Amino acid sequence: MNVTEKKPVRIGLVGAGFMGKCHANAFRAVNGLFDLPVAPQLELLADMDETSAASAASTLGFRRSTGDWRMLVADPDIDIVAITAPNKLHEPIAVAAAQAGKAVYCEKPLSTTLASAARMRDAVAQAGVVNLVGFNFLCNPMVRMARELVQAGEIGEVTSFRGRHAENYMARAEAPHSFRTDPEGGGALADIGSHILSMARYMVGPIVSVCGSTSTIYPERPVFEGSDKTAAVRVDDHAHALLWFQGGQLGSVEANWAATGRTMDLSFEVTGTQGAISFSQERMNELLVYRSDAASGQQGFTRIEAGPTHVPYDRFCPAPGHHLGFNDLKIIEVAGLLRAYATDGHAFPDFAEAYAVQATVAAIHASSQQLNRMVVAS
Amino acid sequence: MNVTEKKPVRIGLVGAGFMGKCHANAFRAVNGLFDLPVAPQLELLADMDETSAASAASTLGFRRSTGDWRMLVADPDIDIVAITAPNKLHEPIAVAAAQAGKAVYCEKPLSTTLASAARMRDAVAQAGVVNLVGFNFLCNPMVRMARELVQAGEIGEVTSFRGRHAENYMARAEAPHSFRTDPEGGGALADIGSHILSMARYMVGPIVSVCGSTSTIYPERPVFEGSDKTAAVRVDDHAHALLWFQGGQLGSVEANWAATGRTMDLSFEVTGTQGAISFSQERMNELLVYRSDAASGQQGFTRIEAGPTHVPYDRFCPAPGHHLGFNDLKIIEVAGLLRAYATDGHAFPDFAEAYAVQATVAAIHASSQQLNRMVVAS
Amino acid sequence: MNVTEKKPVRIGLVGAGFMGKCHANAFRAVNGLFDLPVAPQLELLADMDETSAASAASTLGFRRSTGDWRMLVADPDIDIVAITAPNKLHEPIAVAAAQAGKAVYCEKPLSTTLASAARMRDAVAQAGVVNLVGFNFLCNPMVRMARELVQAGEIGEVTSFRGRHAENYMARAEAPHSFRTDPEGGGALADIGSHILSMARYMVGPIVSVCGSTSTIYPERPVFEGSDKTAAVRVDDHAHALLWFQGGQLGSVEANWAATGRTMDLSFEVTGTQGAISFSQERMNELLVYRSDAASGQQGFTRIEAGPTHVPYDRFCPAPGHHLGFNDLKIIEVAGLLRAYATDGHAFPDFAEAYAVQATVAAIHASSQQLNRMVVAS
Amino acid sequence: MNVTEKKPVRIGLVGAGFMGKCHANAFRAVNGLFDLPVAPQLELLADMDETSAASAASTLGFRRSTGDWRMLVADPDIDIVAITAPNKLHEPIAVAAAQAGKAVYCEKPLSTTLASAARMRDAVAQAGVVNLVGFNFLCNPMVRMARELVQAGEIGEVTSFRGRHAENYMARAEAPHSFRTDPEGGGALADIGSHILSMARYMVGPIVSVCGSTSTIYPERPVFEGSDKTAAVRVDDHAHALLWFQGGQLGSVEANWAATGRTMDLSFEVTGTQGAISFSQERMNELLVYRSDAASGQQGFTRIEAGPTHVPYDRFCPAPGHHLGFNDLKIIEVAGLLRAYATDGHAFPDFAEAYAVQATVAAIHASSQQLNRMVVAS
Repeated sequence: MNVTEKKPVRIGLVGAGFMGKCHANAFRAVNGLFDLPVAPQLELLADMDETSAASAASTLGFRRSTGDWRMLVADPDIDIVAITAPNKLHEPIAVAAAQAGKAVYCEKPLSTTLASAARMRDAVAQAGVVNLVGFNFLCNPMVRMARELVQAGEIGEVTSFRGRHAENYMARAEAPHSFRTDPEGGGALADIGSHILSMARYMVGPIVSVCGSTSTIYPERPVFEGSDKTAAVRVDDHAHALLWFQGGQLGSVEANWAATGRTMDLSFEVTGTQGAISFSQERMNELLVYRSDAASGQQGFTRIEAGPTHVPYDRFCPAPGHHLGFNDLKIIEVAGLLRAYATDGHAFPDFAEAYAVQATVAAIHASSQQLNRMVVAS
Repeated sequence: MNVTEKKPVRIGLVGAGFMGKCHANAFRAVNGLFDLPVAPQLELLADMDETSAASAASTLGFRRSTGDWRMLVADPDIDIVAITAPNKLHEPIAVAAAQAGKAVYCEKPLSTTLASAARMRDAVAQAGVVNLVGFNFLCNPMVRMARELVQAGEIGEVTSFRGRHAENYMARAEAPHSFRTDPEGGGALADIGSHILSMARYMVGPIVSVCGSTSTIYPERPVFEGSDKTAAVRVDDHAHALLWFQGGQLGSVEANWAATGRTMDLSFEVTGTQGAISFSQERMNELLVYRSDAASGQQGFTRIEAGPTHVPYDRFCPAPGHHLGFNDLKIIEVAGLLRAYATDGHAFPDFAEAYAVQATVAAIHASSQQLNRMVVAS
Repeated sequence: MNVTEKKPVRIGLVGAGFMGKCHANAFRAVNGLFDLPVAPQLELLADMDETSAASAASTLGFRRSTGDWRMLVADPDIDIVAITAPNKLHEPIAVAAAQAGKAVYCEKPLSTTLASAARMRDAVAQAGVVNLVGFNFLCNPMVRMARELVQAGEIGEVTSFRGRHAENYMARAEAPHSFRTDPEGGGALADIGSHILSMARYMVGPIVSVCGSTSTIYPERPVFEGSDKTAAVRVDDHAHALLWFQGGQLGSVEANWAATGRTMDLSFEVTGTQGAISFSQERMNELLVYRSDAASGQQGFTRIEAGPTHVPYDRFCPAPGHHLGFNDLKIIEVAGLLRAYATDGHAFPDFAEAYAVQATVAAIHASSQQLNRMVVAS
Repeated sequence: MNVTEKKPVRIGLVGAGFMGKCHANAFRAVNGLFDLPVAPQLELLADMDETSAASAASTLGFRRSTGDWRMLVADPDIDIVAITAPNKLHEPIAVAAAQAGKAVYCEKPLSTTLASAARMRDAVAQAGVVNLVGFNFLCNPMVRMARELVQAGEIGEVTSFRGRHAENYMARAEAPHSFRTDPEGGGALADIGSHILSMARYMVGPIVSVCGSTSTIYPERPVFEGSDKTAAVRVDDHAHALLWFQGGQLGSVEANWAATGRTMDLSFEVTGTQGAISFSQERMNELLVYRSDAASGQQGFTRIEAGPTHVPYDRFCPAPGHHLGFNDLKIIEVAGLLRAYATDGHAFPDFAEAYAVQATVAAIHASSQQLNRMVVAS
């Protein structure tokens, strides 16, 4: 379909940081790659004030700008509201957008508290608007393939899951306070643990109960980078948790933002009675698959490289061996949003899914307060 | 700098296949990522006929279209001519564009014969226009880092180079004839061997002489996919060659498009007196570096993951662990072209470099006809 | 020192299965490799009856044989009693041997119950005899190096530990009952979880409390290989547990003998404030070490290959690149035993250490009965 | 079969260095692992003088010793003569042993010149004695499996071979002269290139012609470790060569003993029309196998770990995941020798095979003097 025949979809973006830039680029790139019935237009950008919004709008290619997100949400010329604002603003923006009948595309985590996340989930449901949350790692064709193999029974019945999201951006004692260390919604478990929990759900299914512990490695951190003044840290630097899935399986995850040496070890192994699948975002264009039905003596994990058979890799390149990058995952995410918008369909992962992830985070936090630790005899 | 303040640069693209799409996407994405003094505009697209050009222009977002590349080259509203047309057309288009005073951006290989490549090199030199050839793999930040380490002497004096470009797109006996098997400019050595030869030059320096052999695995191939009719193959399926560099080093390369199991094994190891560097495009976000000066017992190849310190990774993401993909390499390439255009500077790899690569390919072909094979005693 | 000048040490081995063969080979090989002050002699082999003992003695090279381990323990011509008998016999044999003043070398697990293990620990302590337990994976030079790096502070303060021992020998539903599924001492956690727990202690220090869960994947298994008759399984197929170390660190481990695709994933990552170390027995001749003090842009995990600087690799080969195998670990273990015997010194890991590991296993089992599972809100 | 019933085979070993020790240990260990009809006895050790021989005999467990290898060869109580003496002595010892009717087991390279190697090959043929050369890397179960897969046609018709043997023991400019740098038989190509050439033959078949070049990185080296005095180097530090196999395939190899960072990169990829196999001695317990007949989207190199199905791994361990080490390869080699001896059968690789390898080395050396280097146009 030619671009000129496509129905325009007008994007309003709130927030112009790392993720805002990422959204803008994805909306701009998606039409050259995907054959969508709609064409996104970068219509309006809201940032914290008029000046910064105007500057960012120019850089990112938006037609108009505003210093007030409320104007954006109320603007009749906006079809989709994309939210990359600070976590505390997710709820008011998303609820207002939903009530205004707009599709809502929100960065993770959904909100700072579970109650707030529930209100957001209910608001989009009540308004009946398309809604999507940016768990971008689920958009990887290799991750999608892993899920399809699991669901097709190619590894038999799932028996276990072991996952981790480990990065090192808070590994230095000198890493300062920021929104990430705000007790409302902060900490490694909420920030990146949510990614591996969404992955666990994507692979194995709902998590019904948990048992976990959080830990703070650095009790004090500088109030800002380079400051001599420190303040107490009231969030976790890492967490380990046991998980029980609806299907009865036992699993475990680790979330760690002080994992020296790791930049993106979002990794998991899902084990089944007839096979196993292993993945790490460190090598995001590869999936390791083991099948028990391979010939005797020839069994092993097969390193499958991303290629055109792994949808929608073919949208980016017709030949295998040409890797996708992180920004491409965001383009895939945006393509899914636009397709849902155009067909009045369902986007995934939606607010309900993001709420479920957040409920799992909250349960681990609660569990950490009430653990029965068993003392080892000496 | 705001987009609105930037000087527009009008792009004329010839060819709308895989690489044409790739160019268009790169030109569209580059301004959201790089802070360039110019803003590319997708002005005019030429394809083999009016209809296909119009359709592609709409899909890829060009303002105008034409079925005649000569019109595009002559158009006063075009600043840069990007050439992704069949190899045989590279020379006439590039020479005409240069003579019209336009910057020229040409896909590799430069041309189908060395004499033709020489004419192209001379034409852009004489016209004094910015020129660039799409050896996109050189744009990888990890490859750039490898070169910088070598040039800074961090691995001592280079003593050896061993490289390979192996893919499997012609590995099946049923893979049919195409432009790739045209005796003028075709074959594995010219098609992908040129990538590893450009890499060898980038790492170690000029190649002064060679000794190599080409081989045709399938003497006949179908005339088109699925055809019962076959025709003789007159190009190589793979080649192995010894290289002598200007610095006196001995090395070797393999080019193989029938390498079953390999999708993009563009890989090399460059060895020095004090260290070594190993790379494969199969894991394009990693560089393996060995340093002899590591502590005793702690020496080994260090797996360095791409991050913001590896310029220009930071343009795509401010944090490490977020991989770049193949299409990002093309954006980096285009950014370099635009920067050279804006400053009337020098782009790399230019036509002179591409000519040198092609001369190396030609020398290996010539060598293959005159080898002194030594018979092994029995 | 020449063999003829060495003091002979007479070995009495109880059990001639896989591990018995392994012990015999290690005792035979050790003198050609290590320069020990004593020379082991394969004196007496005890097995379940006279016939099997005589046959095994001949095959394995023992001078004499017996069908009664009590005779072996009482034999005045035996200096060291090596125990590879079924787990239930460990206690009576070891206690009798200790009371007879002999050094005792026992396979893991120490015993079938914690109370029994305590009696064994106390018996060797009271007798003052050299004692050693076969946690052979600790004997790997690369594991030893990891511990030395940790203890020297090369990765800063340890902040986290994540480990796993996963194999697939019980992954098939058809894998039958055996001594491994005996409720006294059986199950994945006791059988192989003990290896990763000993590793955790070796790297980070004592484990003071735990919180874990065990799970049985196959509630029934055949009573023997191929049988149609099944019996209930009363042990765990896998377990996940949180660990708290004496130093305050939080960690986690998994034990899984139904890990389809894994043959020896005894693996861990120990994270510190200034570095990290990663290891898997799947690549037992490699250690991955990350150091924060590497040059900017050149940080990464360094793959260190085993070589002569990693004691006692040099005993097996004077050059790097020549891998050690599993049986070599047993030779190193035996060399440590003999050195302790010859000098009346201390062997490690001793019965006290093995007791501590077993106490950790027992605590996880107990924890699994009393967990506070937190329900995830829906 | 019990040891006591086995026919004793009396071993006479010449040389007590690294390889002599390795032989002694292998002969001592083999009976505890393999079920052979004969039992090796360490009967007589010859070294350069009486004193060193007596000392080594005691350490390594030989009954008798001598300072004169001629006595050993003539001794009627010796059945097999194992030669680990300096390369220059291989011929006289082996020829004398063969003429005395003894089986001959010689370390590689067979001899210092091709003419000498031919005489050795002819001597054992004429005497009709069992003969074996120590290309130990061929004994790896994973390498054997690779060959079996190739020969069974599991990767289709072989189309290409690319191999390398790279180590770093001469990478330092300060690495001194030794027997390795003796122009008669020395250099990287002869020393370690012979391993990858034997591997190439094992995988693909006879090599009929070559075209190669050798290079000397350090023209001078110290006369001994630490000496200020240097002498000219008259052998190669590395070599690259093209190979043509009897089956018509083109391939290439590199030999490099100055490969900074590499300790044992004896690696190859053999490509076929339906699959490919990749191996490196750096990970000697793994084989990477690609099969074109895997399900669409699930193709990739499968990492097969050594296990009991890979004969004769089962002799060392009944379970997978327990790695073999380098010394185990020597035990497998010795088991093959003893089996051939016991059955008056054929051992592999024999002197004829070693001669063929040496002829290939010689042909590359000769080729290096007469290459038609093709100059690259500029």
